[in-house]
Amino acid sequence: MDRIYMDHSATTPLSLHALEEMTPWFREEFGNPSAIYSYGQTGKTILEHCRQRMAKCLGALQTEIYFTSGGTESDNWAIRGACRARQDRGRHVITSAIEHNAVLRTLEDMESQGFEVTRLIPDRFGRITPEQLEAAVRPDTILISIMTANNVVGTVLDVKSLAAVAARHRIWFHTDAVQAVGHIPLKVRELGVDFLSLSAHKFGGPKGMGALYCRLPNRLPPILTGGGQEKGLRSGTENIPGIVGMTAALEESVKNMERDTAYLTDLRDRVIDGAGRIPGVFLTGDPVDRLPGFCSFVVENIGHSALLVNALNEKGICVSSGSACSAASREASHVLTAMGYDSAHASATLRITLGVDNTAGQVDYMLEVLDEAVTRLRTEKKKEPVFAKPTSSLFPDD
Amino acid sequence: MDRIYMDHSATTPLSLHALEEMTPWFREEFGNPSAIYSYGQTGKTILEHCRQRMAKCLGALQTEIYFTSGGTESDNWAIRGACRARQDRGRHVITSAIEHNAVLRTLEDMESQGFEVTRLIPDRFGRITPEQLEAAVRPDTILISIMTANNVVGTVLDVKSLAAVAARHRIWFHTDAVQAVGHIPLKVRELGVDFLSLSAHKFGGPKGMGALYCRLPNRLPPILTGGGQEKGLRSGTENIPGIVGMTAALEESVKNMERDTAYLTDLRDRVIDGAGRIPGVFLTGDPVDRLPGFCSFVVENIGHSALLVNALNEKGICVSSGSACSAASREASHVLTAMGYDSAHASATLRITLGVDNTAGQVDYMLEVLDEAVTRLRTEKKKEPVFAKPTSSLFPDD
Repeated sequence: MDRIYMDHSATTPLSLHALEEMTPWFREEFGNPSAIYSYGQTGKTILEHCRQRMAKCLGALQTEIYFTSGGTESDNWAIRGACRARQDRGRHVITSAIEHNAVLRTLEDMESQGFEVTRLIPDRFGRITPEQLEAAVRPDTILISIMTANNVVGTVLDVKSLAAVAARHRIWFHTDAVQAVGHIPLKVRELGVDFLSLSAHKFGGPKGMGALYCRLPNRLPPILTGGGQEKGLRSGTENIPGIVGMTAALEESVKNMERDTAYLTDLRDRVIDGAGRIPGVFLTGDPVDRLPGFCSFVVENIGHSALLVNALNEKGICVSSGSACSAASREASHVLTAMGYDSAHASATLRITLGVDNTAGQVDYMLEVLDEAVTRLRTEKKKEPVFAKPTSSLFPDD
Repeated sequence: MDRIYMDHSATTPLSLHALEEMTPWFREEFGNPSAIYSYGQTGKTILEHCRQRMAKCLGALQTEIYFTSGGTESDNWAIRGACRARQDRGRHVITSAIEHNAVLRTLEDMESQGFEVTRLIPDRFGRITPEQLEAAVRPDTILISIMTANNVVGTVLDVKSLAAVAARHRIWFHTDAVQAVGHIPLKVRELGVDFLSLSAHKFGGPKGMGALYCRLPNRLPPILTGGGQEKGLRSGTENIPGIVGMTAALEESVKNMERDTAYLTDLRDRVIDGAGRIPGVFLTGDPVDRLPGFCSFVVENIGHSALLVNALNEKGICVSSGSACSAASREASHVLTAMGYDSAHASATLRITLGVDNTAGQVDYMLEVLDEAVTRLRTEKKKEPVFAKPTSSLFPDD
């Protein structure tokens, strides 16, 4: 049975182009960029060239791009670093209630260290308004962290307007753009943000790679100290193959964005139309300002979305009940709860996120399977979710 | 000109075997291990299987291995986490003066946050004695961090005896084993350490990958918070290809260790003998308890070791003036200074670290080039170091 992968916001396969660019750096050009012999200097050269290419894709300066191990590290660095740098000015941080846990849990940790956090509640589409943000600003607000696009419902937030509020009050503005980078046009100077987190494996790059755009590098203290790489701001031997792969994938995404967006938007609307014909299936998130390949639904009266994910899995279709990180959890999505859904609805979610490898034929097949599964689940009226078990295992004895 | 790479303690090429094991996980089996469909569950299965294999190589339990982005993150996590967990018991930490900067700089940061740090001074071979450590213990000592093998002189420390001192006083013991893992036999239970840091690219694994052995996982708070991966202790989507590559490389290193150690020790002693015949070239570090392929010297009367590294580079030989991270710096090595060398000697160091791809013929050629270079540099009596320039650049216009 061929698998149909429709969970691209959880992770993407490494782009073939990225893999090809990475490969020579594994074994042939593997020198440590900190070395002073020419073998290492080749690594140093490609490192700075990649930084320049990444900067160009994001509309940033080369000196503003810092390589990290992923979106989570970037979020932690921006938040922990900013709180530490500015704690003498104030200890109030504003965020939204629909952030990824890399932001929310980190801010909870800051609360345990004496910071105060205001979590803005979005409207039912997942939007936060500049007026809302303005009203939450206090004299001791030092940081605002609001995501560019939501990972559960796909809503694209108006970060430009939100960052403008922060700028007026001289508050640092961080955005977790993990779901957005490589998928929607995004230039940091136009957005006006101070810090922006991205993760390579969300746009065809390798896992374990990310970056932080940092408009104020001299003012953000490091969270990982040591050998002094990345101008002393992020220590650790540079992962050259990872950096090369991330850069190649981002360039590819940006280059193909117009074409891919048109394709994915069509495909997405095909899913939304089709799923909307099934009674009791409702789109969540902003119907207009949403990520190109991103579909998210509440499916009423099926008990729990894991049942539905399981049913689709049995037919070879990979979709998600919400964010990847909390997929195995039976808790209602904090995002949908914050958007005003009751717990029954917030735990009966379905996320279908498309990639350019998906086809209209696959979408039609998925919709068929979905329709059948919803009907069957409602007929069976099962109350208890049954979690998917591995249908294949490399090591069945483990 | 063929390159002769003799800087294996800076970094190693990715093992072919590791690359082959990694490859399917880039594009074919790329699912997010947190997903509940079978595609993700395959990732979950391999993840736990790798953890088990890593644990076996290290003599640990599967539940004691945590994946990180590298040695620097592991060191930061152990130290920052331990200080935070135990700050109510005391704020005194003991380390050695010859640690890697991932430990030293992190402890400096802890000092700025109210901790006190004692740095033990080694003897001229780079050794720290249990008696020395015992004498430094205070009632408020909460953590001891002493490396397993030094990255500048190659001395293997007596961590087992040092950890026993810590255990007697119920002080947590961390060891940075980045240079040791995969190179010398090492079982965490025999060593008796609580935390052990390792880095994949030092033993043929991929860059951007490491692990922390953690005997007390429930008591070490995370430094990267978010999606709750690694049982909530290290958030961030798991880098499955990296984890697979690191595991394969460690298994390979452990499997071949006896054979490789015999080969590398012979080759190392060939370098030590040959270099020792050049007047004014002295071995640094412990002559007996040293890493198999590790040679380190002070070269008198040449001005600065960068001149020597440059001279060897011109002949296609990659060696180092000291640790990779500080190679470009003109400062005297803090390690040699701590070992009692004056600043002239401590800045005239040469590190030659061999791998199984090196041959006796390469060693003999290197020794010839070294002899000539030392003679020439002394004749020229140049005072100012000239740093190596890239002899080839992929992007000459940058």
